[in-house]
Amino acid sequence: MTEELTSTIVHEIIQKRPVAAHKGNFGRVLVIAGNPQFGGAGIMAATAAINAGAGLVTLATDPINFTALHSRTPEAMVIDWHDDAQLALAIEQADVILIGPGLGTDELAVHLVKKTFTTIKTAQKLVVDGSALKVMAENNLVFPLNIFSVATPHQGEWEVLSGIKLSYQDNLSLNNVQRSILNINVLVLKQHHTLIMSELGEFHLGIGGPYMAVGGMGDTLAGIIAAFIAQFPNAIKATEAAVYVHSAIADQMAQHSYIVKPSIIADFLPNYMARIKNNLVEPENPTN
Amino acid sequence: MTEELTSTIVHEIIQKRPVAAHKGNFGRVLVIAGNPQFGGAGIMAATAAINAGAGLVTLATDPINFTALHSRTPEAMVIDWHDDAQLALAIEQADVILIGPGLGTDELAVHLVKKTFTTIKTAQKLVVDGSALKVMAENNLVFPLNIFSVATPHQGEWEVLSGIKLSYQDNLSLNNVQRSILNINVLVLKQHHTLIMSELGEFHLGIGGPYMAVGGMGDTLAGIIAAFIAQFPNAIKATEAAVYVHSAIADQMAQHSYIVKPSIIADFLPNYMARIKNNLVEPENPTN
Amino acid sequence: MTEELTSTIVHEIIQKRPVAAHKGNFGRVLVIAGNPQFGGAGIMAATAAINAGAGLVTLATDPINFTALHSRTPEAMVIDWHDDAQLALAIEQADVILIGPGLGTDELAVHLVKKTFTTIKTAQKLVVDGSALKVMAENNLVFPLNIFSVATPHQGEWEVLSGIKLSYQDNLSLNNVQRSILNINVLVLKQHHTLIMSELGEFHLGIGGPYMAVGGMGDTLAGIIAAFIAQFPNAIKATEAAVYVHSAIADQMAQHSYIVKPSIIADFLPNYMARIKNNLVEPENPTN
Amino acid sequence: MTEELTSTIVHEIIQKRPVAAHKGNFGRVLVIAGNPQFGGAGIMAATAAINAGAGLVTLATDPINFTALHSRTPEAMVIDWHDDAQLALAIEQADVILIGPGLGTDELAVHLVKKTFTTIKTAQKLVVDGSALKVMAENNLVFPLNIFSVATPHQGEWEVLSGIKLSYQDNLSLNNVQRSILNINVLVLKQHHTLIMSELGEFHLGIGGPYMAVGGMGDTLAGIIAAFIAQFPNAIKATEAAVYVHSAIADQMAQHSYIVKPSIIADFLPNYMARIKNNLVEPENPTN
Repeated sequence: MTEELTSTIVHEIIQKRPVAAHKGNFGRVLVIAGNPQFGGAGIMAATAAINAGAGLVTLATDPINFTALHSRTPEAMVIDWHDDAQLALAIEQADVILIGPGLGTDELAVHLVKKTFTTIKTAQKLVVDGSALKVMAENNLVFPLNIFSVATPHQGEWEVLSGIKLSYQDNLSLNNVQRSILNINVLVLKQHHTLIMSELGEFHLGIGGPYMAVGGMGDTLAGIIAAFIAQFPNAIKATEAAVYVHSAIADQMAQHSYIVKPSIIADFLPNYMARIKNNLVEPENPTN
Repeated sequence: MTEELTSTIVHEIIQKRPVAAHKGNFGRVLVIAGNPQFGGAGIMAATAAINAGAGLVTLATDPINFTALHSRTPEAMVIDWHDDAQLALAIEQADVILIGPGLGTDELAVHLVKKTFTTIKTAQKLVVDGSALKVMAENNLVFPLNIFSVATPHQGEWEVLSGIKLSYQDNLSLNNVQRSILNINVLVLKQHHTLIMSELGEFHLGIGGPYMAVGGMGDTLAGIIAAFIAQFPNAIKATEAAVYVHSAIADQMAQHSYIVKPSIIADFLPNYMARIKNNLVEPENPTN
Repeated sequence: MTEELTSTIVHEIIQKRPVAAHKGNFGRVLVIAGNPQFGGAGIMAATAAINAGAGLVTLATDPINFTALHSRTPEAMVIDWHDDAQLALAIEQADVILIGPGLGTDELAVHLVKKTFTTIKTAQKLVVDGSALKVMAENNLVFPLNIFSVATPHQGEWEVLSGIKLSYQDNLSLNNVQRSILNINVLVLKQHHTLIMSELGEFHLGIGGPYMAVGGMGDTLAGIIAAFIAQFPNAIKATEAAVYVHSAIADQMAQHSYIVKPSIIADFLPNYMARIKNNLVEPENPTN
Repeated sequence: MTEELTSTIVHEIIQKRPVAAHKGNFGRVLVIAGNPQFGGAGIMAATAAINAGAGLVTLATDPINFTALHSRTPEAMVIDWHDDAQLALAIEQADVILIGPGLGTDELAVHLVKKTFTTIKTAQKLVVDGSALKVMAENNLVFPLNIFSVATPHQGEWEVLSGIKLSYQDNLSLNNVQRSILNINVLVLKQHHTLIMSELGEFHLGIGGPYMAVGGMGDTLAGIIAAFIAQFPNAIKATEAAVYVHSAIADQMAQHSYIVKPSIIADFLPNYMARIKNNLVEPENPTN
């Protein structure tokens, strides 16, 4: 049986920062995302990571996306993902690597996934989202061993990657077995009531809604997860908190907004997190 | 005789979304728009489509417009409209195709209109606006058969396309005959009191005003229409609702704004639609 | 003796628009501005023209500026100022041409000024600002005959153009003689208390302040003037009103802002003009 | 012993501007910053300089950064830092030169630092930040003689530049000796409680906090320092005020924001400075 994820998780995870902390304490996130057609995905993921509190965020992407990212978020750094040496250095320096939003599935995408998976080191953490999951399935790639890994497929992507058909995805043990075999520490299965599975158990998200059915929603979530893992101690719980925060903000915005744009969820992250830190958002009944 | 379009139409069309809905339920919109000179038109149409609630929006345009679009609206996807293969795929996958805003009338524009008209399939819907209407007139193109089509000419464009002179455009039957012959399901004739003609009858818009006389107003309207058709069940009524929403927002903004910028109308769409959904906007007397 | 320009001028000029008006009624403005180094000047002038109510605005500029303009103001159209044929067409179609903000003084700048001055026709109006005035002085160019012309030099530019030294610029008759000889219908001499001279007399601006000492302030003013001339009937009074509006907004913003950025003045234009139209801004004592 | 820097410094420095002042009175700032990977640093520094009140601001940078800067801040001017002649002219015309944010340490970076240091003249002021300090250390460069210089290293950069190990950096005399030898007029040593050392004594900053641990924070500070030095009379005190303002704004924002983005600190500068000017921010107890 799954337990419902409640606001307790965000109050547990989002704490006042240590007074003397500096950028290094909140992690270096590398986002590998955004081909020329889906550039917005990389822009949204990197921006979400910054707004969610990562110390330093670099977007490795096609250079066509540099300017739009900097127009929105000058705090981000960029590297041309065609530049193998620069990318290798960025991978080496990262605490958390998020790969996948708007990556596409072409030869370059395959190369980027392979390169990341083969050079990532044990102390680093990995978030795999979107097209990177498709690349894995199409190329029979497995998650790297001994790396803390989060996967964030929607149901269709999970079907292809895990071999578990949509109609069987309600079977939690099946999902958990596949998660283990695939070496995924946290599986975020995006669906009507998103499921989060890890060694801490199975949780489902009771919040969120159809106003979130907007392109880019998953890219923003992936960025928040990466930032939370980078800055908060317990990576599994940090992932759970990230999933909760993403939908909690959407729920609050939906009171005044027919659809909720993911880029605007990112804008509200610092304020939402401050209210959690200050205990101003009531658990279970957010009305601010 | 025409009937006045009232706010009843928006209350009828804009409903609470089904709880378990996902992006696919709200349609995939392809916007083909924006040459190097009129790039803003494509940017505004695509942004309006996203803000109005379409599930996924792709802008096929000149690559010079990618960055400005992503700076404003990272939720949009893009394709280079010179890339025939990619465009063909995008046309095939779309639920609604909007062609015309800032398209221009050069050889490429003609090619794009022809390609769209010859490859669109019966289940798909079509919105034709701006220069695409001029391209049709100049090249003796007709609307594709068995495709639900909306045309949004202003009076001058309608004169050229339909052969109905401005001085005769008050004759509704004449307009309706031409609409039928041209195979247009909904004709949105943009003028002081915009007319909407379809098999459901003739309606005129009693709201809106001269503060809307700003470049880009029509591009934004076209984007809203495409999004409404993509997500709401009755395409004719969805078009009527889109036309109403566009001017209703402008009227509210005009209380505090000498001119109303179309890009700002797009910004207000999610909030306006939420108020309609929550029955907070009084029919006929909007004062919020 | 000069008279002080009061808020009476804005209440006289900024009126409710005719109900059935369309874009064509508010004029087509062509802004020729913004070389690669001073691109922001063109962006600010064009944006100000749109926000001030011009019907249609095109920026002829270096293509490097297209994307930043569209990121901020998708309502604007653009043309590459190296494209002589396209520029000729744009000049021909314009009601008002503003040339000069960030134009520079190189060979291309000289060509653009000459081309504009030799092809502009009697019914069209001309606003000459910034580097275009320097180009005129350096190349012994005169204002075109029989064209309604506004010049907006600051004192240094006026010294070079008119031959009137700074120390003699308090002599209004001297300025007026030179204005006449140079065929300038309205001279806006930008200084601590800006002077406006025309056949309607000499006015000085009593409002404004040192919070306006920010780069780009003149570019924004030039855009407002062009838009006002394009949409309001009396071009001399429209210029006076534009000068007043520009500083009146700055004064209101300065209550909460140590410096006033010209791009933000442009943002406030529609709201300020609505308040004038609705008689909500008290003459001489703006406190809203 | 160090004294705590209090809000007295901002009330002393930020005064009502002289009524008849113009752009020239508030200084011409040249920012040399932002390689393709760290372009946002240059954008944030230049924007901060404008918002903090510098009269005219030019960013010398890689051309890839022009558009993003203009999208955010059209008030800035730009030059391509590969263009030696244009750069030489800009250096000559500047009142204050800020070099370093996101500069990198490659051959071009070294050239730019050397060029600046060898051509700057006595009346001009210099702010050296970020990678420019690393370039100095790696190339054994010294601060130019007889130039008012501010250096803004964080502790690691100071270690490399000064030879003073982190563990000895609490020794103020040691720091002051090295500051003198290196010919730095004001040393801003960025750390938990930032230290400011000059001939006026040693001050530490008691405000600020871990919500400021966001990439780009130092770039924004450097831009504020440059603008304050450019417009306010006492360059040492102006630097102290800039350091205080930067953290005071962050503290106010942190009441509602878990992290404080440096680009948003820049947005609030004009309002904060207006409140100081109007004595609306109570010393030591900011609650607005």
